[in-house]
Amino acid sequence: MPNTRIREDELIERIRRRIPSRPGGALRLGIGDDAAILRPSQGAEWVLSCDQFLEGVHFLTAVHPPEVVGYKALARATSDLAAMGARPRLFLLSLVLPAVRAGIWLEKMTSGMARAARRFSLTLAGGDTARSVSRRASVALNLTVLGEIATGHAVSRAGARAGDAIFASGRLGSAELGLQLVLRGIHRERRWRSLLVPHYCPELAIELGRWLAGSRLASAMMDLSDGLSTDLSRLCRASRVGARIDEKEIPAVSVPGELRARGLSSRALALHGGEDYGLLFTVSKRHVPSIPRVFGGQRVTCIGEIVPGRSVKLVAADGGTSPLMPQGWDHFRRSG
Amino acid sequence: MPNTRIREDELIERIRRRIPSRPGGALRLGIGDDAAILRPSQGAEWVLSCDQFLEGVHFLTAVHPPEVVGYKALARATSDLAAMGARPRLFLLSLVLPAVRAGIWLEKMTSGMARAARRFSLTLAGGDTARSVSRRASVALNLTVLGEIATGHAVSRAGARAGDAIFASGRLGSAELGLQLVLRGIHRERRWRSLLVPHYCPELAIELGRWLAGSRLASAMMDLSDGLSTDLSRLCRASRVGARIDEKEIPAVSVPGELRARGLSSRALALHGGEDYGLLFTVSKRHVPSIPRVFGGQRVTCIGEIVPGRSVKLVAADGGTSPLMPQGWDHFRRSG
Repeated sequence: MPNTRIREDELIERIRRRIPSRPGGALRLGIGDDAAILRPSQGAEWVLSCDQFLEGVHFLTAVHPPEVVGYKALARATSDLAAMGARPRLFLLSLVLPAVRAGIWLEKMTSGMARAARRFSLTLAGGDTARSVSRRASVALNLTVLGEIATGHAVSRAGARAGDAIFASGRLGSAELGLQLVLRGIHRERRWRSLLVPHYCPELAIELGRWLAGSRLASAMMDLSDGLSTDLSRLCRASRVGARIDEKEIPAVSVPGELRARGLSSRALALHGGEDYGLLFTVSKRHVPSIPRVFGGQRVTCIGEIVPGRSVKLVAADGGTSPLMPQGWDHFRRSG
Repeated sequence: MPNTRIREDELIERIRRRIPSRPGGALRLGIGDDAAILRPSQGAEWVLSCDQFLEGVHFLTAVHPPEVVGYKALARATSDLAAMGARPRLFLLSLVLPAVRAGIWLEKMTSGMARAARRFSLTLAGGDTARSVSRRASVALNLTVLGEIATGHAVSRAGARAGDAIFASGRLGSAELGLQLVLRGIHRERRWRSLLVPHYCPELAIELGRWLAGSRLASAMMDLSDGLSTDLSRLCRASRVGARIDEKEIPAVSVPGELRARGLSSRALALHGGEDYGLLFTVSKRHVPSIPRVFGGQRVTCIGEIVPGRSVKLVAADGGTSPLMPQGWDHFRRSG
């Protein structure tokens, strides 16, 4: 059997040829040595996160084209940089690859990832690959992303205060609607094709995050990755506050009548659907007039208010309130 | 079925309680937000690497105690920082965990990792966890490690020049000898217990690496992770040089007679055995007298010389030379 490590070098070379990886700027030394070397800018801090993207958990190879897998794996991780207000810079890719995926599937996956890297201005700085010969093995990607931000400007989840307005960017539930089409096996029908885009190729709110952090307008911020109900409860827990959300203000995805008839509700998708990757942020009352209604083509909507206490409530159109419980998001296994 | 994401929060809390993760120093914001925030020291660069540690590829749960898995996963990744001369600072842990490993196995694994973190002065800054419900799923760890080094001091693989002396630290083949006991199923015999230590809990050469980088004595450096023959060929390729290694100078592991009789050769272990995690480095002739023979209890040995050309040759005790081909190291599947 040929030597795995030598084959690994070849695999890395194939990935490196496709994905932007040339040293320059912050990256002094890239792929090929024991480690990469980063030179920080004066007056900047680094923001750092990692995210896994696993076959059978986050994607299904039978359904999701390899380009989508590559694009989404990197987009998802990069959204955590947007959530802090940072400027994406570098990433590392760890990859477990069954032998059966090492050919054309890998080429297409890295193409999709290269597209995300160019779009988000990220350079591949290193990584690790392992080929698995097991027939039962599945693809696993781990993305470590690094961004830069002016010292002291990063926005955490913990700064929301009672009285702050709560904003969300984008249309909530759009990605979940696409996922539901996939789960129902109707995603190949031509008429629904445009509804798949937010699930396949999510938009990130990088520029909005950078603007909010740079202008110091947001008191707390995070990305909408696991659904409004789950993410808002996390923001409130981190900030030790409660929230009231106005149901009629939520910028919910619109669902075609035929899909509504199949049980897809705009309200449930918007409240609990994950993977939208817009931003959820809070703004003190006096700064609210500074927040635009549209930023970079994405709508920015005030959906409620931070309140004292610890509970998160939903105010219905008729004025009645009910607790908004985190019903987060469990990828391909729906929560009960 | 309960919600995976909420359970994930609990899992993270359990890991965080065990492994050093308190913000401070370079780490401004740690686990619990969208991303961690690092504040670089004045005049320092960051060194960054990631490494996977996979069940069935890098360890076997039937053989390797969970404490060993946790310790070794982090040690292995950290060795890449030592290889550049950097001071370890922070790490991220991505974890795929089958449900059956989420109890006592996880507790012990994180204990082992906590021990490595304390030993190498690393703080856990974040990560990602996924629980797998599949019975066929295996444990996968991905460690991203970050270290700091004075700007311009990191030592790459690419600086070796003809005439430089080649050094190795530690005793080569020690870890491979332990692995061979495991593969032969005789690792539980009491008399071999001490031979397992280098395989279970490798020493790193962090202080030696920092000293070599700080004093600018090494022209090229890397860690010995995949075996001398493979690693030296990589150093030579990166530096565009060749090498001559003196077989009699190699500080090879000593193999008890009974194990030699079972086919374990000190020479083969030292030339091709992986996971020793000493350093392989080159030093220009005029600096050779500055290199101590022992550093921090580890021997430091001159094993040969960089030569023009691109071939790597082994000079035997009788003066005969032969090409030293990379026969690297393929974990549990031996190379042919």
